[in-house]
Amino acid sequence: MSKNLEFIIKLCKKSGKKILKNINKAKSIKSQGIRDITTNLDLESERIITSAIQKKFPSHNIMREEEGDINNQSSYSWTIDPLDGTKYFYKGIKFFSVSIALWKNNEPTIGVVYNPCTNDCYWAEKNKGAFLNGKKLQVSKIKNISEAIIYLDFQSKKHAKIQEEILEKRLLKIYKNFYRFRTFGCGSLALCFLAQGYFDAYFDINGSQPIIDSGGGMIIAKEAGAKITDLNGKYPGMNANHMVITNGKIHDQVLKILK
Amino acid sequence: MSKNLEFIIKLCKKSGKKILKNINKAKSIKSQGIRDITTNLDLESERIITSAIQKKFPSHNIMREEEGDINNQSSYSWTIDPLDGTKYFYKGIKFFSVSIALWKNNEPTIGVVYNPCTNDCYWAEKNKGAFLNGKKLQVSKIKNISEAIIYLDFQSKKHAKIQEEILEKRLLKIYKNFYRFRTFGCGSLALCFLAQGYFDAYFDINGSQPIIDSGGGMIIAKEAGAKITDLNGKYPGMNANHMVITNGKIHDQVLKILK
Repeated sequence: MSKNLEFIIKLCKKSGKKILKNINKAKSIKSQGIRDITTNLDLESERIITSAIQKKFPSHNIMREEEGDINNQSSYSWTIDPLDGTKYFYKGIKFFSVSIALWKNNEPTIGVVYNPCTNDCYWAEKNKGAFLNGKKLQVSKIKNISEAIIYLDFQSKKHAKIQEEILEKRLLKIYKNFYRFRTFGCGSLALCFLAQGYFDAYFDINGSQPIIDSGGGMIIAKEAGAKITDLNGKYPGMNANHMVITNGKIHDQVLKILK
Repeated sequence: MSKNLEFIIKLCKKSGKKILKNINKAKSIKSQGIRDITTNLDLESERIITSAIQKKFPSHNIMREEEGDINNQSSYSWTIDPLDGTKYFYKGIKFFSVSIALWKNNEPTIGVVYNPCTNDCYWAEKNKGAFLNGKKLQVSKIKNISEAIIYLDFQSKKHAKIQEEILEKRLLKIYKNFYRFRTFGCGSLALCFLAQGYFDAYFDINGSQPIIDSGGGMIIAKEAGAKITDLNGKYPGMNANHMVITNGKIHDQVLKILK
């Protein structure tokens, strides 16, 4: 395990434990509508992480959710999801994570996703495999989508009328062709569950989520054997906002269904 | 807290802790297709629970998943879900529960849902409120479905062609009209999350799940303030296999959408 990975794990655990300690005490400090809220713990977690990264890597870029990006024109970028699953946390439900990734240019090179509620820490480094608490992870071996479980991300409903029709058709095709679909509003843990072989595919159905936000889960899935492309079968790149992740074996079938 | 409730909580915790201890060691002992499996821990948990109930209440009925129902023609029936979330458990993911309910005639009178992974115990007794680890629960106050999150249960795909079309229409209506929908394959925890105010509605979209299996979650939701009916707005009764549960405030809107 590299020193950088050790640093990220420590940071995720520190933040995650602070969040868990404050369950049932959090306040909503910003909201876009009734459901889409930010709590003081989202902000505190982001500040803990940002300040530790800035101290150790002052020349790197930091992309974050709450207080804006820090762009130092570096080829290294940190992406922070300080609290994925805020809506659960806010209601006192122990289902959320802290997620950090370090990108070099166009791809994540280290990623950590930590679930403080179960004390489960997922991590991966490029070309070194993916692990859960030290146990090596491997994607599923499912070969047919009729036996596959797909996780769907629905980030937003802000889209044009024509886009709406595409989404509805996609949703029905997914419902009809997969064994099951799941959606639970915590994409980072969904990608870890894919790395564990529970999900066979992951798809952001709206294509409205910048993939850079998912760096931690992406490299964990990839190092467990997952294939990552856009809808055209190409590597999506850092600035894309659409990605299809599968166990590899069903990738072509999934792309065909989603088109 | 009644003696019977204490007994059920103890039993759920005993079984749940045994299951958690055996994560990553479970074997599949029965399967219907690649995904639909039963593990040795489903069976062991059911046996622990059955034998304790039989010892204490030899004249009651016991309805269980793995080894068949015990019908003593009693007006008291126990319903056991020894491991809800088997697919997660089998892949080493800490997201599952043990659930027990005691029914008198047509309705659950005591229910417990225990999540051993987070050590969260939900319970309720008729007319005495619903609790999470002793903290009183209350359903959400959301008044419009456009702000509501609905949990969908998809139990099976075994249905006729004509039924398929109804389901597809329903799914699209739900997608279009609610703020979000969620589905994660653990109905007992979903009902507890509704009792906590995270979900505003719960619906078994296929209507293929005997509601008696959900007794624990049902009374926890009800005692937290939820309304429970069938699609026609009537109490579904013990032998129904269709139910709509909401925070009460959006119930009529939800029934209208689902019809």
